[in-house]
Amino acid sequence: MPTEHEKSPIIAITMGDPAGIGPEIIAGAWREFFTQPGNPSTPFPLPPTRPVVFGDPHVMRAALNLRRVDAAITPCPDLGALARDYDAYGGPERMPVVSCCREDVASVSYGETSAAGGEAAFRSLNRAIDAALARQVDAIVTAPLNKESLNLAGRHFPGHTEILASRCGVDAFGMAYYLGPCAALSSPTGLGVAHVTLHTSMRNALDEITFDAVLEKIRLLHNFMATILGRAPRLGVCALNCHAGDGGLFGREEIEIISPAVAAAREEGIDVSGPYPADTIFLDAKHGRYDGIVAQLHDQGSIAIKLLDMFSAVNVALGLPIIRTSVAHGTAFNISGKGVARITSLLEAVRVAALFANRHETP
Amino acid sequence: MPTEHEKSPIIAITMGDPAGIGPEIIAGAWREFFTQPGNPSTPFPLPPTRPVVFGDPHVMRAALNLRRVDAAITPCPDLGALARDYDAYGGPERMPVVSCCREDVASVSYGETSAAGGEAAFRSLNRAIDAALARQVDAIVTAPLNKESLNLAGRHFPGHTEILASRCGVDAFGMAYYLGPCAALSSPTGLGVAHVTLHTSMRNALDEITFDAVLEKIRLLHNFMATILGRAPRLGVCALNCHAGDGGLFGREEIEIISPAVAAAREEGIDVSGPYPADTIFLDAKHGRYDGIVAQLHDQGSIAIKLLDMFSAVNVALGLPIIRTSVAHGTAFNISGKGVARITSLLEAVRVAALFANRHETP
Repeated sequence: MPTEHEKSPIIAITMGDPAGIGPEIIAGAWREFFTQPGNPSTPFPLPPTRPVVFGDPHVMRAALNLRRVDAAITPCPDLGALARDYDAYGGPERMPVVSCCREDVASVSYGETSAAGGEAAFRSLNRAIDAALARQVDAIVTAPLNKESLNLAGRHFPGHTEILASRCGVDAFGMAYYLGPCAALSSPTGLGVAHVTLHTSMRNALDEITFDAVLEKIRLLHNFMATILGRAPRLGVCALNCHAGDGGLFGREEIEIISPAVAAAREEGIDVSGPYPADTIFLDAKHGRYDGIVAQLHDQGSIAIKLLDMFSAVNVALGLPIIRTSVAHGTAFNISGKGVARITSLLEAVRVAALFANRHETP
Repeated sequence: MPTEHEKSPIIAITMGDPAGIGPEIIAGAWREFFTQPGNPSTPFPLPPTRPVVFGDPHVMRAALNLRRVDAAITPCPDLGALARDYDAYGGPERMPVVSCCREDVASVSYGETSAAGGEAAFRSLNRAIDAALARQVDAIVTAPLNKESLNLAGRHFPGHTEILASRCGVDAFGMAYYLGPCAALSSPTGLGVAHVTLHTSMRNALDEITFDAVLEKIRLLHNFMATILGRAPRLGVCALNCHAGDGGLFGREEIEIISPAVAAAREEGIDVSGPYPADTIFLDAKHGRYDGIVAQLHDQGSIAIKLLDMFSAVNVALGLPIIRTSVAHGTAFNISGKGVARITSLLEAVRVAALFANRHETP
């Protein structure tokens, strides 16, 4: 009979851009992945997992040294072998690393954009996606990459989510923030935020806000938060225009598009209301009135989540055939290599990834 | 020789909609207006002022009773007499009220929209504007009105600012938030936020974001915060598009409009930078990097200010011939009449109004 540990999900953690804080937060969090229950750095205990790093062994060695973490790097060329006997490769004192990068990763300096750094992040991510699609790993947790470096490497994607969608062959997908329980929220179960539009210009976003798009994001967030909470979530929907359009005076999208989509979702039995002004709905959410918010624009949700508590927040890809979570912060070039980056968002990302993996559901 | 008290600014405080929390926060704050220095409810002491309420004596009597404030209402038909001998009308135990309302104000119920409530707020405001234009009062501080009630009264304005501009005969004007020193900010001097576009649809806002509009708002915020701080402020400018357009990938307004306006302001000697992504600039401001932020859209600044600390925030009209500040919160119909509304925003609004009045400058 397999033990609980042997059945626990295998989590691929991608290293991200080696010039950023990705490697060092993985190193800093490493031993905490194996400390259950009652992890001191997260409000919720982490479930047992079997983490494996996708990246470069030398970069991860340097990161462990930087964070003064006493663990060995163990090469992991065969994910089947890792699944059969994780303890031979990983544990609090052994970090299994799937080597994904070219040799030029050695040239990357902390805090500097480079083609080599972008390529290293891109290869680590793609290798992890392939492993997830092949069911060799149960979920992916991604450390931050740098878009400029990605472009320098000739990889022209706006961010992680689009790379994931492209490699998974998926058109309709979404991204949710999940802000876990933290001091900034009165809710003990956290807050999910989904965006109707994401990485596009404001002018394009206005055209992308359609009945179908709003309804789809309400459904995705409903399913996502239902899995997180284990019950039907209470959702609220942001307006697009200030003062929620004020009865049509400041725009008609609320009347013509968003309200009908909210009504359709209610017809399906989803507990959702709105649209409400974006400057008050997040205050209500902070005070526990909603479990999830559908934002119309990237910055509506992002301003709120980052002000509430960026380092407790996690990104979750919705609608992919694989489970993928991510830290909500960026590469933080201004502090990388200093060993001070906070690990809470990474621990939350692993916790949420494991939660879905244990239920055999994708968000 | 006049005493300091006799020279202190006369502040007209408009009652706002009697169905909202306006009357009760004025009543709750009344005695604190006369407690200097070291007012316990604000981080900064209030300077001496001579407050006078523009509204309805019966409504204010009920509000004093509700808040259990031991003060008499003294009718004030003649502002000249008030200026010559304030102590005969006002003080911690006497609230001078300029009667502005019709008799139907008696019909207004807490928490309910009504034409009578909207008309009462409108008349109180207009009377105060006239008094300020005639230099009978030195500044106006406005309690919240309800836009729906205003419309029911046949007064079709989106809000205070537009009424002020209309009655003052001004076209180019602005509105700034000023968030005074509070626990949410690491800056000990507070944060100012000006908006390039305000009460309009998102589609219109995109067309209103021009070189001239951005530059004008940078100048207005610079002058405003320079008066607040007594030194040149450090300003930051929000992008319009997510990720600040990401080099043109998500919109070109940053490249073609906002950056040139920032450069032009720097040419004029203003300490300003940007555009920066809206979801990180407010986090940097929270940590003290900027004294003021120019936001492109209503909700960019408003989401941030309300999440940081709505009840320490003040609205300030920029570019009017008179001084006018306001609480940043609304009528709060859900709690009006319960006597629990917080007075901090009103005290801050009076402090900022007095600050400009004492310097004989308009924001």
